Amino acid sequence: MSDDSPRLNYRAAGVDLDAADRAKRAIKSLVASTHDRHTLSGMGSFGGMYAVPGGLEAPVLVSSADGVGTKLKVAFLSGRHDTVGADLVNHCVNDILVQGARPLFFMDYLATGDMDAGVVARVVTGVARACRDNGCALLGGETAQMPDFYAPGEYDLAGFIVGIAERGALLDGSRTRAGDALVALASSGLHTNGYTLARRVVFDVLGLDAESPFPDSEETVADTLLAVHRSYLGSLSPELERGTVRALAHVTGGGIPGNLPRSLGPGLGARVDTGSWNPPGVFGVLARAGGVSRPEMYRVFNMGVGMLVVVAPAEADGLVSRLRARGEEAWVAGEVVAGSGVEMG
Amino acid sequence: MSDDSPRLNYRAAGVDLDAADRAKRAIKSLVASTHDRHTLSGMGSFGGMYAVPGGLEAPVLVSSADGVGTKLKVAFLSGRHDTVGADLVNHCVNDILVQGARPLFFMDYLATGDMDAGVVARVVTGVARACRDNGCALLGGETAQMPDFYAPGEYDLAGFIVGIAERGALLDGSRTRAGDALVALASSGLHTNGYTLARRVVFDVLGLDAESPFPDSEETVADTLLAVHRSYLGSLSPELERGTVRALAHVTGGGIPGNLPRSLGPGLGARVDTGSWNPPGVFGVLARAGGVSRPEMYRVFNMGVGMLVVVAPAEADGLVSRLRARGEEAWVAGEVVAGSGVEMG
Repeated sequence: MSDDSPRLNYRAAGVDLDAADRAKRAIKSLVASTHDRHTLSGMGSFGGMYAVPGGLEAPVLVSSADGVGTKLKVAFLSGRHDTVGADLVNHCVNDILVQGARPLFFMDYLATGDMDAGVVARVVTGVARACRDNGCALLGGETAQMPDFYAPGEYDLAGFIVGIAERGALLDGSRTRAGDALVALASSGLHTNGYTLARRVVFDVLGLDAESPFPDSEETVADTLLAVHRSYLGSLSPELERGTVRALAHVTGGGIPGNLPRSLGPGLGARVDTGSWNPPGVFGVLARAGGVSRPEMYRVFNMGVGMLVVVAPAEADGLVSRLRARGEEAWVAGEVVAGSGVEMG
Repeated sequence: MSDDSPRLNYRAAGVDLDAADRAKRAIKSLVASTHDRHTLSGMGSFGGMYAVPGGLEAPVLVSSADGVGTKLKVAFLSGRHDTVGADLVNHCVNDILVQGARPLFFMDYLATGDMDAGVVARVVTGVARACRDNGCALLGGETAQMPDFYAPGEYDLAGFIVGIAERGALLDGSRTRAGDALVALASSGLHTNGYTLARRVVFDVLGLDAESPFPDSEETVADTLLAVHRSYLGSLSPELERGTVRALAHVTGGGIPGNLPRSLGPGLGARVDTGSWNPPGVFGVLARAGGVSRPEMYRVFNMGVGMLVVVAPAEADGLVSRLRARGEEAWVAGEVVAGSGVEMG
């Protein structure tokens, strides 16, 4: 071979298998910390193995896939990588909770341009903590090195959850009736939606950076924008067991008007009384500084409502009391009506 | 509001919810084409619902997450988007097959900078086709618009699979013995590994483009590099039912030395006779043009072997005959030995 011939290897091409091994070692105990008696595999097997829990007559698996979206950019700007994993897990937990399922296991997909074992470990720390908090095994995942895809220091993070429910207890829209009450549960901030618009306003229009004070707030921009997407599993599990919940709607991309109809049966719409709560200050700052119209705000952001619970009207007050006793901010925010669509009154 | 105030909305910020709706409509029938009697939800529910099939004494869920990796760059260069989805599904199917599981359902995660409903539909066409071919429902997924993350026309694609196996039939490394035979099944090309190195050699060192003839071949570069990662489910399911398979190893990132040990029990290694087959021409071209060492080639690429089957020595010839009768290229490629690691002889 002549002297000017290339001598390529995987590392020179941009893929560092040794860094991948370091990352795997760093997350091994985090993954193990989430395992339970149903988990039949450790890290390193091709497929994660999880025994189907017994005791259900007609078990149904309920599954959802999601990403963190451009909230990740705030993590990059602030160098805080240990919360976005919890955003992802909690988002997925809520998505299957609204069908009446409790989580069994979770898998993550983390793609980077350059593999930094420390960043990978911090991301997985957040994933594992939220898995433990939700009683969910982190059964496996994929950490991909993709040079030329992601800018240095950046990554994408997606996840996938599998839960289980008794077939007869599924929430599938068939239980809702015109006249049912809508009980709202407060969100903890923007959750994981609307970040492309929020970042334009905060970083471009207002010219703030991650550690600037957020306007009209005692928190920094990073604190405000990285507030962790809440899981409603703990507060709502007892209500699912009572059997009084007729439907749940997780308020994600599309806001209340985009998500509530997904949970109602055919021929039903809803009237939401937006005067029943004051959206947290962050939404007012975004609306004013960005000149964002009111309908657009409600279409893009959760506006302070993370979850809507549909119950028979006679159940609403009792539900609100029990939720408040569990520490939730909860209130009656509207009703189900005959028709279609959501009227934001 | 003064005239120079911004008037922002989600679309101006880079997220087009209408394009997202168009993409959803485009893939709706593709998704439905994969559903079966266990699928209890259509598109649009928060979580996909799948009834656990009956008839198993101790059902175990087997799950895996994976991405397509930088093979996607070849799809971008050639404008062919309808095969990478099949790469992803087949990769995941093989990953749970090696634990003895058959697939139930699949979920995809597709992240783009700018949402092109036509490209999304072509990607999902490949996902759905492979799901049908593997008897697997496409139960849901997430299509994320992430401006500032992905270059125009680019996307990342990841997937998650859930399969099922009888607990007593799991392949977990406990059945392998020193002296067992290794039967190799041919790959269909690079499958989904080593593309960062392969692209450097083909596009940078050799200066080819997607439609150039591949060296020493009648195919184009795109044909060669986009050859679809095979599923071994059809050929190996009958063998799993016979109960003679002691272990399977899917040859992915890390090659034979990186993957075979994952399937063998403790205290066992393997000797692979690399003289038992001729790696397809594509690997020779990559090695020569890139000046890639022989050990590095076997560590990065599958070198022509997509799956290894471990059976008792007396079973090897019969297995090879049955696999060939099913159209597979199959041969005895080595043996399990006491010790550890893989000797590539």
